Amino acid sequence: MDVTRIIKREVLGQEAYQIDERICRVKLDANENPYSLPEELSFRLFEYLKTFSLNRYPAPGSPELRLKFAEKFGINENMIIIGNGLDELIQVLLTALPPSGSVLIPSPTFAMYKISSINTGHDVIEIPLDKNFDLRTDEILRTLGEQSPSVVFLSYPNNPTGNCFDRERIETIIRQSEGIVVVDEAYFHFSGSTFLPFLERFDNLVVLRTLSKVGLAALRVGILLGHPSLIHELNKVRLPYNLNTLSQAATHFFVEHEDEFLAQTKKIVAGRAGVFRELELIEGITPYPTDSNFILFSCLRDKDGVYERLVSEDVLIKNFGSSGILKDCMRVTLGTDDENDQFLRALRKAVLQ
Amino acid sequence: MDVTRIIKREVLGQEAYQIDERICRVKLDANENPYSLPEELSFRLFEYLKTFSLNRYPAPGSPELRLKFAEKFGINENMIIIGNGLDELIQVLLTALPPSGSVLIPSPTFAMYKISSINTGHDVIEIPLDKNFDLRTDEILRTLGEQSPSVVFLSYPNNPTGNCFDRERIETIIRQSEGIVVVDEAYFHFSGSTFLPFLERFDNLVVLRTLSKVGLAALRVGILLGHPSLIHELNKVRLPYNLNTLSQAATHFFVEHEDEFLAQTKKIVAGRAGVFRELELIEGITPYPTDSNFILFSCLRDKDGVYERLVSEDVLIKNFGSSGILKDCMRVTLGTDDENDQFLRALRKAVLQ
Repeated sequence: MDVTRIIKREVLGQEAYQIDERICRVKLDANENPYSLPEELSFRLFEYLKTFSLNRYPAPGSPELRLKFAEKFGINENMIIIGNGLDELIQVLLTALPPSGSVLIPSPTFAMYKISSINTGHDVIEIPLDKNFDLRTDEILRTLGEQSPSVVFLSYPNNPTGNCFDRERIETIIRQSEGIVVVDEAYFHFSGSTFLPFLERFDNLVVLRTLSKVGLAALRVGILLGHPSLIHELNKVRLPYNLNTLSQAATHFFVEHEDEFLAQTKKIVAGRAGVFRELELIEGITPYPTDSNFILFSCLRDKDGVYERLVSEDVLIKNFGSSGILKDCMRVTLGTDDENDQFLRALRKAVLQ
Repeated sequence: MDVTRIIKREVLGQEAYQIDERICRVKLDANENPYSLPEELSFRLFEYLKTFSLNRYPAPGSPELRLKFAEKFGINENMIIIGNGLDELIQVLLTALPPSGSVLIPSPTFAMYKISSINTGHDVIEIPLDKNFDLRTDEILRTLGEQSPSVVFLSYPNNPTGNCFDRERIETIIRQSEGIVVVDEAYFHFSGSTFLPFLERFDNLVVLRTLSKVGLAALRVGILLGHPSLIHELNKVRLPYNLNTLSQAATHFFVEHEDEFLAQTKKIVAGRAGVFRELELIEGITPYPTDSNFILFSCLRDKDGVYERLVSEDVLIKNFGSSGILKDCMRVTLGTDDENDQFLRALRKAVLQ
């Protein structure tokens, strides 16, 4: 069997998503919440999880969670899909669209938009961000007019640049688009800024949320919010038992105890400005403004060497390739106060060598 | 926004997977294992699950599990993908194939082959089973020659008919197919019959396994086994964090304690012949031979009435629509001895009314 004859060319041509599999004691590469659950909260969570039958299929479509999030967000439950992480929901959306279409994304942005678009047969139109890492509205609007992409993905705040795009620019894009505009609010809890209220106004707007950045990355829970007529169609593509029972139950527990989880998020936000200032003080390092739980920074001298020296000090951050707009950049996730200190100390040392 | 303009026509045209959401005390509709975990085993499982960090992403690609299954199946780990249930792996495979192709399935068979094929843009060729619910090899081979489908799905044993197709017919189909042949062994633990040894011989063979029928349906764990060159391509389509941490960990625990889990499976198999004989004795009921944890049976008089009377006795089984080859049929999952007795008692009563 010759796989090159069987597998479609878009898949043959692409690399899989790259994940750094190195292990360091200080892990600041994946935009996770650095805190484990408080012991007492963890105990109660697992006591709750134990009450579910593992021999039975999960509730199809997570109906109880949809009700819970409907109440929390003040919208109807028929505007909500819960997924096995946002990755799944992005793929469900792309699978539901005609493969002859195109997908518009700014560049740089979250890698999975492009990977999943290619896998599902879409052409990808990448439009570089401007020098402030904001959207080039003129070029985007022109492309909307000329190529009418099926969907525009906007990460808000944007990963890996960290900033929220200008709200009016996004609003203009939503108004002008004949397709769907996805505002991915994976990092909402660090920006406090949302397009949720716009769901009522724009029926082509989709908002994404996740529990991955607020302490439950292990469970893979994403949330897609959109117009009921769109949700109805996406539910035909969503696999019937897409979210396992324990992730459903843990999400239920999360919503019931949100304040206790978000206390960790608040601690991260509280430490952000301090890390930013310290980075500014390091010779050759320039951090970029962030609304997220991570900071992008440039390192003009011997970037890959600095990265390797951080690893040798047991600090793992994210490095970017040696070409493109991010060629001088690395990204660090905000950790605990102690981890932030270790990172800064290791970086100060690394840039001097 | 007009969704009929945005969503692709294949999705617009299809119904979502139907799941009976009625609740009965005796639940024999979904081919689940009826037994919950022994208390002591459950305790140890959750003690193990507690040791994992919920704030960190799952291990991408489930590397430890692939090693464990490689050892168990006696194959190389690069022949294995672990998925969020078999549904996900079926969709990954279909997404990796050119959408202009076709998919061949026997009819009737597991509903998700067709649903996912349509969602991913494939034409579906359905070839009815013969009167013994076996494969019509002549017609299938002719279709392989004429239309060269990208993939053939064979459920082994077949759901919902319950039987294993003739092995030589399957082998002929694998030999003659220029595309992939998937042998879905979701019910392997009840048939004891497998094509696993054929993986070495046929590079276009894919074998599927799952934990859903042996006590862990809640966790959504499927396993796809195939040629390394195929697995390499499918891994580009598989989402990087497709299986959550707790499902990965529970699967690890399952493999370590397989005998304790499979003791339940053996009890189910031990009760199967008895239920079959009892069904044969009921006037108007004809059960079909099974190698699975369920029995298909025909009910020639007032089938829908019989079904409703079972529900009113708190017994839920699966009913089929009023047209097609299954129009006289219902399917019952084997339960505990007690549940089997309650089902048989309710059925005897229901057919008399």
